[in-house]
Amino acid sequence: MLSKKQFKLINSLKKKKYRLEYQLFLAEGIKVVEELLQSNFKPHLILCTSDYSNKLSRDDLLIISDKELKSISEFSTPNQILGVFKIPNTDSLKTRGLSLVLDGVNDPGNLGTIIRLCDWFGIEQLVCSPNTVECYNPKVVQASMGSLSRVSIIYRDLESFLREDTRPIYGALLKGENVYQKILNKEAVLVLGNESNGISKEIQKLITLKVTIPHFGEIKRTESLNVATATAILLSEFMRN
Amino acid sequence: MLSKKQFKLINSLKKKKYRLEYQLFLAEGIKVVEELLQSNFKPHLILCTSDYSNKLSRDDLLIISDKELKSISEFSTPNQILGVFKIPNTDSLKTRGLSLVLDGVNDPGNLGTIIRLCDWFGIEQLVCSPNTVECYNPKVVQASMGSLSRVSIIYRDLESFLREDTRPIYGALLKGENVYQKILNKEAVLVLGNESNGISKEIQKLITLKVTIPHFGEIKRTESLNVATATAILLSEFMRN
Repeated sequence: MLSKKQFKLINSLKKKKYRLEYQLFLAEGIKVVEELLQSNFKPHLILCTSDYSNKLSRDDLLIISDKELKSISEFSTPNQILGVFKIPNTDSLKTRGLSLVLDGVNDPGNLGTIIRLCDWFGIEQLVCSPNTVECYNPKVVQASMGSLSRVSIIYRDLESFLREDTRPIYGALLKGENVYQKILNKEAVLVLGNESNGISKEIQKLITLKVTIPHFGEIKRTESLNVATATAILLSEFMRN
Repeated sequence: MLSKKQFKLINSLKKKKYRLEYQLFLAEGIKVVEELLQSNFKPHLILCTSDYSNKLSRDDLLIISDKELKSISEFSTPNQILGVFKIPNTDSLKTRGLSLVLDGVNDPGNLGTIIRLCDWFGIEQLVCSPNTVECYNPKVVQASMGSLSRVSIIYRDLESFLREDTRPIYGALLKGENVYQKILNKEAVLVLGNESNGISKEIQKLITLKVTIPHFGEIKRTESLNVATATAILLSEFMRN
């Protein structure tokens, strides 16, 4: 059974303020919670319905009713398990291989999809500007589908980070060089910007090579690609060779 | 001012049943409605707030109040304009160039993103299985960002469509050949499947070449890519040369 204190804690973690204060975040659903439990993330509290409890051999499970789960879930159809995990200590910056940098990405679904792409393409570190959506936002956790446990995510002032890094800096812009015609260095930093405004002016100044995904066909086309699909195409271009 | 009849019509169009019955669909927001007005789509009714009315020189505009717009909008912050458009007659099937085929894509956001990708990559026709989410669903219209006006979308029984088509049929599967190592024919059909189950068994039998986007790095990775990001990467691979 869920105590009042636990109910209050879980509801508070839907807000960024309390996630920062308690250094805890929520994850829901079998796939995401199981992947986090198998990772280095430390569980603080794992709640599940009785149907699910015998599938997981742990002695720290708290069995709750379907009704209790529904009362704390963000899903219209809750999926058997909800976990409260500790926010890990920020890793140190890695300055090897390909790092992905996000400058002001707002949409939680986009950030979650980008984390999943980093996981797929073996990108170990994602560096986000302080105004990028927080990666422990429940919608980001959900959209990342457990990839959050395998990608190190750091929030940094991008200007100082990029000034100190010695790798070439690629930036995705609408007016840049055709990415298909460039030999891309895998020891590099790749920057993508905000959904509406792209990469901020200050950061654009630090870019070594502006790259563009060209569009095809003759008629007037959509103005831009969604930031998550642009990230997919660019990571594929960097890693394909 | 909005009449009761108009109010009722607009609300009914949030349901597929009535979109099919009336052969009309809804679009909201400046960007999407303006792009549809500039296309071959025929408007049935255009409603906008007085702020916006002088920006658009049309005599068929119906001026409504902010409160009226809010009462019919699906947005929490409605964006000045709402249009009711006629569903166009289905174009004939094109059997030249690269066609994209979707087998059971469920999520409206994914379909909208894929329509936008077709627009970017100059893919003229998208062929969907009957169980793919309907392209005039308001969430699809929104996510497509106006690209709906530039991509022909047809719902067909895929088995008979693919049996009659003479082009090679590529299918995106988790176990297929490394797409980066293949020479891809641009006179072809590319099939992507459902978010959870991929391409159905019946359709898999018709595929000429199964292709896979390989993952990178040594540690255990996410099991699959989101269907919209996989589409982005595959369309980029077909078109890049």
